Amino acid sequence: MDEKLEQAIVDIVGKDNFTRNIIDLVSYSCDASEHSHRPLCAVFAETAEQIADIMKLANLEKIPVTPRGAGTGLSGMAVPIRSGMVLDLSRMNRILKISIEDRLAVVQPGVIYATLEKALAPKGFFFPPDPASGKVSTLGGNVATNAGGLKGAKYGTTRDYVLGLQVVLPDGRIMRTGSKAMKSVSGYDLTRLFVGSEGTLGVVTEITFKINPRPTATSTALATFDNLEDTGNAINQIMHSGVIPSALEILGRETIAAINQNTDLNLPEVEAMLLVEADGYTRGETEFQIQKVLGIFEANHPREVKQAKTEAEVKNLWAARKSAYPVLSRIKPSTVLEDVTVPMTHIAELLKGVQDISKRHDIPIATFGHAGDGNLHPQILYDEYDPVQVEKKEKAIRDLFELAIGLDGTLTGEHGIGLSKAPFMTLEHDPVAMDMMRTLKKTFDPNNILNPGKMALEG
Amino acid sequence: MDEKLEQAIVDIVGKDNFTRNIIDLVSYSCDASEHSHRPLCAVFAETAEQIADIMKLANLEKIPVTPRGAGTGLSGMAVPIRSGMVLDLSRMNRILKISIEDRLAVVQPGVIYATLEKALAPKGFFFPPDPASGKVSTLGGNVATNAGGLKGAKYGTTRDYVLGLQVVLPDGRIMRTGSKAMKSVSGYDLTRLFVGSEGTLGVVTEITFKINPRPTATSTALATFDNLEDTGNAINQIMHSGVIPSALEILGRETIAAINQNTDLNLPEVEAMLLVEADGYTRGETEFQIQKVLGIFEANHPREVKQAKTEAEVKNLWAARKSAYPVLSRIKPSTVLEDVTVPMTHIAELLKGVQDISKRHDIPIATFGHAGDGNLHPQILYDEYDPVQVEKKEKAIRDLFELAIGLDGTLTGEHGIGLSKAPFMTLEHDPVAMDMMRTLKKTFDPNNILNPGKMALEG
Repeated sequence: MDEKLEQAIVDIVGKDNFTRNIIDLVSYSCDASEHSHRPLCAVFAETAEQIADIMKLANLEKIPVTPRGAGTGLSGMAVPIRSGMVLDLSRMNRILKISIEDRLAVVQPGVIYATLEKALAPKGFFFPPDPASGKVSTLGGNVATNAGGLKGAKYGTTRDYVLGLQVVLPDGRIMRTGSKAMKSVSGYDLTRLFVGSEGTLGVVTEITFKINPRPTATSTALATFDNLEDTGNAINQIMHSGVIPSALEILGRETIAAINQNTDLNLPEVEAMLLVEADGYTRGETEFQIQKVLGIFEANHPREVKQAKTEAEVKNLWAARKSAYPVLSRIKPSTVLEDVTVPMTHIAELLKGVQDISKRHDIPIATFGHAGDGNLHPQILYDEYDPVQVEKKEKAIRDLFELAIGLDGTLTGEHGIGLSKAPFMTLEHDPVAMDMMRTLKKTFDPNNILNPGKMALEG
Repeated sequence: MDEKLEQAIVDIVGKDNFTRNIIDLVSYSCDASEHSHRPLCAVFAETAEQIADIMKLANLEKIPVTPRGAGTGLSGMAVPIRSGMVLDLSRMNRILKISIEDRLAVVQPGVIYATLEKALAPKGFFFPPDPASGKVSTLGGNVATNAGGLKGAKYGTTRDYVLGLQVVLPDGRIMRTGSKAMKSVSGYDLTRLFVGSEGTLGVVTEITFKINPRPTATSTALATFDNLEDTGNAINQIMHSGVIPSALEILGRETIAAINQNTDLNLPEVEAMLLVEADGYTRGETEFQIQKVLGIFEANHPREVKQAKTEAEVKNLWAARKSAYPVLSRIKPSTVLEDVTVPMTHIAELLKGVQDISKRHDIPIATFGHAGDGNLHPQILYDEYDPVQVEKKEKAIRDLFELAIGLDGTLTGEHGIGLSKAPFMTLEHDPVAMDMMRTLKKTFDPNNILNPGKMALEG
């Protein structure tokens, strides 16, 4: 790296906010995906103005800039695949304002999801998207990837809660979008163009979120099923019953087996398990909902139906669900966690299709996920040092995406495109939509310096 | 109008779908705003392919095309201000699919909001945005303006329910955006770029909506207050209380007086009235919420607090609220209905400010609106044939927008920019945001033929 360039960067952010240390750069090569590529340097920004200057410099020198929160993304969006500079936003970590009466929180992008949750909890409020990575992932990353989670069916995803942004554009201009008002239809929706754009259109430097009062009652139940038809029917009947569970989770046979091998939870070894939570303000409200769900369970030939009666039982049920990803990740040296999403009537077909793909390519795939919004997580287990297994994994992934798109679904419900799903974008999007996305990228970032190489935007 | 051009249009849509009849063109000059301008012709489209051909022809001949649903817009977005062709979408009025299990409805743009509501009601589902114009306005118009209504605070606006679109771009290409899955983060959010774009970026030809189960219980209450401070405090305390009412409406003194003059409702002549509805699945749930609200009412020096005990009482309360706009519209020959929106803590200041503006310019302004999301409707009453009153109205509008923006608010919570608010766009948006909106318009529509002259996009 050119010394003059290094000095120019240090002049902007200060010496303590710049690193070329090899240990740092190795860390900045990776996120939570299987991709990696080493940057030339990494820079911490502390203000929007610093980022504006960095972007102006990057444009002048044609250096790629890859924004990064906590690096928990599963699709490689924070991997600096064209090298250049990683722009680490984790030091912009202040909660600027919480106004309960206005139902809003204003934060910097480096605030951890859980930190905001902790600040809101004593006031009886929460920020509903609830990504599984919430203990470590940043709110800027949540916005960049439109993070979602367990509560998606009832509460939607990050997109539904972003009221406004401050953004540094690729050319270094600073812009405000949206409003601090709950509702605005003033001009184009620039805000949501940035939500989910994976740091390719601008660097988010401030976020105004809508927040919600936290429900004060929940009821929880589970059922196990010996076949996928019954499971699918139960899901469809719940969706039809007039209640929207705050969580409706599914664990497949392979996932259950893995949990049993690695924990003391002793789950029944069945084809699928459904775990449902209903929320509200009163016990009567949540019981009304859960009784509907229990009735539907009973009507669909369950192996077992169980309602959690105590706080400890509730914890146990969620422990099973939440252990799925870490437990499965331990079985083989490598895993890919997919997040295909289909209309809910196609969930049983998707589950069966995944089993077929697993058999066809002789590679283990365990599935769990959010049945309430059709978002499933087939987790493919393999050894990245075994070329045969890597090839099987690649074939299984392509088959999986073709299956999901064939079922009117999408490549990704919450993990984003990044590098991992970029080759499959044209499976889902027609040529005109692809062209419009690429045109938007060129319009915002003509020199292609902001997070280049992602989302198939260069094709 | 050139005969060759007329023939070319008729060749695309057929003779029955074309008109140059002067009576028709006078109708197509107007929407529900004070603006009007006569088009050269009006065209009904029946398919996306016809619209694609129309757009190609319009590009070739440089004829402005203004898409139109039911023409209920209050800001002039359907007025063909540059003449040319009105593209009437009301004959594309089929509900293509309702799948309750998948929580979605697929419709053509000309379907009336109330028609979809009627189709969903027997299944226990609804489409929550609930615009006041819902009995006549089209879903395509709802999407183009991101329509909202009474239930905004709890349920959000149209934007939150659009999963995907089919759109004809200004150059005649047909594109699909979004997904039929509940969640997708696959590529840029093209869908929401069209929502609220007022027909300036593309013509929406098919919409996939998320739908919700309809709550099965409601509780309703009202309070009247002798001063705005108490009213504002009550609103803030409700927002802070942990419940989100499904409606939290406010009627100001002048509105109440007008209702009393024109109906038998006999409302108390107070400074403000708050009307609250809580919804849920069970009576216990809605009572829990409404008791909280009643407690807050009692603590803020109300003139009167009342809970509706019967269906008839509920109807009466809502009749008062729903009569506001028509009743006020009858007092003077002309009215402008604004929809400034502010963070909820500023509602009392906004109301006081509106009274000041009314006094300062000696022009009656009556206010009502959605206190639950800060969206107020100051309705300015004047005579459009009296130049003095017109000037007063213009001054009052500018003061009103400056007031709202000064209170961290937005020009428009649900009526859109169109022609009426275009001159004030730069009050709200910084120069970079204005530039990005104009750049987007140029990128999508380089010949500026799709609904030109709106939203200050040419500045």
